[in-house]
Amino acid sequence: MVLSKAWTLAKHFKGFPKLSDFKQQEVELPNIKDGEVLIEALFLSVDPYMRSYSSISMKEGNIMVGSQVARVVESKNSAFPVGDFVISTAGWTTHSISDGKNLQSLLCNWPEHIPKSVALGTIGMPGLTAYFGLFEVCSLKEGDTVLVNAAAGAVGSSVGQIAKIKGCKVVGCAGTDDKVAYLKQIGFDEAFNYKTVSSLEEALKKASPDGYDCYFDNVGGTFSSVALLQMKQYGRIALCGAISLYNDSAPQLGTYPVVPFILKEFRMEGFIVSRWKDKSEEALKQLMTWVVEGKLKYREQITEGFDNMPAGFLGMLKGENTGKAIIKV
Amino acid sequence: MVLSKAWTLAKHFKGFPKLSDFKQQEVELPNIKDGEVLIEALFLSVDPYMRSYSSISMKEGNIMVGSQVARVVESKNSAFPVGDFVISTAGWTTHSISDGKNLQSLLCNWPEHIPKSVALGTIGMPGLTAYFGLFEVCSLKEGDTVLVNAAAGAVGSSVGQIAKIKGCKVVGCAGTDDKVAYLKQIGFDEAFNYKTVSSLEEALKKASPDGYDCYFDNVGGTFSSVALLQMKQYGRIALCGAISLYNDSAPQLGTYPVVPFILKEFRMEGFIVSRWKDKSEEALKQLMTWVVEGKLKYREQITEGFDNMPAGFLGMLKGENTGKAIIKV
Repeated sequence: MVLSKAWTLAKHFKGFPKLSDFKQQEVELPNIKDGEVLIEALFLSVDPYMRSYSSISMKEGNIMVGSQVARVVESKNSAFPVGDFVISTAGWTTHSISDGKNLQSLLCNWPEHIPKSVALGTIGMPGLTAYFGLFEVCSLKEGDTVLVNAAAGAVGSSVGQIAKIKGCKVVGCAGTDDKVAYLKQIGFDEAFNYKTVSSLEEALKKASPDGYDCYFDNVGGTFSSVALLQMKQYGRIALCGAISLYNDSAPQLGTYPVVPFILKEFRMEGFIVSRWKDKSEEALKQLMTWVVEGKLKYREQITEGFDNMPAGFLGMLKGENTGKAIIKV
Repeated sequence: MVLSKAWTLAKHFKGFPKLSDFKQQEVELPNIKDGEVLIEALFLSVDPYMRSYSSISMKEGNIMVGSQVARVVESKNSAFPVGDFVISTAGWTTHSISDGKNLQSLLCNWPEHIPKSVALGTIGMPGLTAYFGLFEVCSLKEGDTVLVNAAAGAVGSSVGQIAKIKGCKVVGCAGTDDKVAYLKQIGFDEAFNYKTVSSLEEALKKASPDGYDCYFDNVGGTFSSVALLQMKQYGRIALCGAISLYNDSAPQLGTYPVVPFILKEFRMEGFIVSRWKDKSEEALKQLMTWVVEGKLKYREQITEGFDNMPAGFLGMLKGENTGKAIIKV
């Protein structure tokens, strides 16, 4: 008999989430049946999408959604023997029972020197988001100039580096000088702190006087209103996230450049990475290869302790992380 | 020696254009040289794009841009013999000299019973706009539910009918009850007067409770803010025009549903019909076939007299036309 801890959504977030919106519960898990496994979380992921997902698809009392890297500790399912490492969508739980449907084995031959938590980051959902957003949504071509915001985050840092691997010019924006320094360190051609520039428009123009072919948007809101006006003819915009909007209780008022959108023939697409499930193994192998070759660097911001998971989530929403925000049990 | 009349942009439009923003000029044309032709306009086109184009690409004193159906009256160019009918981008002029580069012959075998002015409408640029917007931008599929606004205009009425030909459900919005009656007459499944419904949101929901796969937007602005929220997963939006915005002197403030755009994975693209120039002859033949078969109906709003061209243009911008606004010399 195993005691599992879980974090539930105690109260729907109003504006920016508070620690008191979460509640920890303990549940005694039953014995596993044929076909089932018991898994124990090692690393848990906190991601921006959880904020928007909670409002739309969760009820109060539900366990918070999310992915984790876990180890199989009991098994009556031959596909997942004891000791195997899996990615699970069990949510914010320390232990859980699964029939295997929400589990995925870690890539074969996972190198010793790469922490398994990276399967929640650059060689996981955020890496895939960058990959498919660039290739499937932005139709990335060699020589493109790519703009990405929240660029020091798990997705953004992969976007910039993948675009560099493909021979593009990359401009990244982030919210602290340390993050900007990190972007330059991992190969961004241009990077600036959007919070301290006197004019976002001027900073974008300076970073790429000819404009941008691709805009990978993790932020939304007023940033986008300005950035769209800097796009070239046939500019492609991948709408990946809108972290500047998730905590709003009412839609933001803004200007949307509809006439330039028509005359410059922009294409903008919202996307969720699960659309390309059938291509994801191949893409993960590519991401792994780039990581092993040192072309695709990752950084993690580790919060220690399952009990600190809500605090880690809030810190990530505030932009306190450089790289992937991870909770280590 | 021929006297040509032309309408010029006397003053850049401020807000809604005024008759005094135009000035008529008369020019004596020289004799034609080898390779040139002299053409005489029969029908001239007034289109919404002229409003936005004037602000961006014209100088005061320039001849207004536009297309016309003309007859070759003198020729030293064997490609365009005297008596031939051509489409010319000569702008708002009664007579002009061309080396042939801005001329296109009317489709071969143009049927007697179809006025040649339709080469400026359903079997011309507006028809092509509908065709490519649906097939290339919206990736139209049988069974899609299609929303189109300014639906009684030259483009909108073609959009609805082509979508019907392809087995779609079509909902159209227009600004007078007469236009709505016309939409029903030409086969729209649902049509309503957006100016008189108590709630656009409710009207859109009633017309298609399951939402919309494709939204062909000729209007922009607040209409779009509401319409986008009625789109289904993977909704495709063709941004063709923004007639509600062209006369604004400052960008409109509005809400843009970024989070639904991401979660529902919308794709929105602005487009200009000239992108598919190399496919346009084939498309024109298809449009002609549908017109001849009676599957694609057209209506024209004729303003008589070249001197009344600015008035015809203003009327079109006010939405006074049902079908294609044409100036008959």
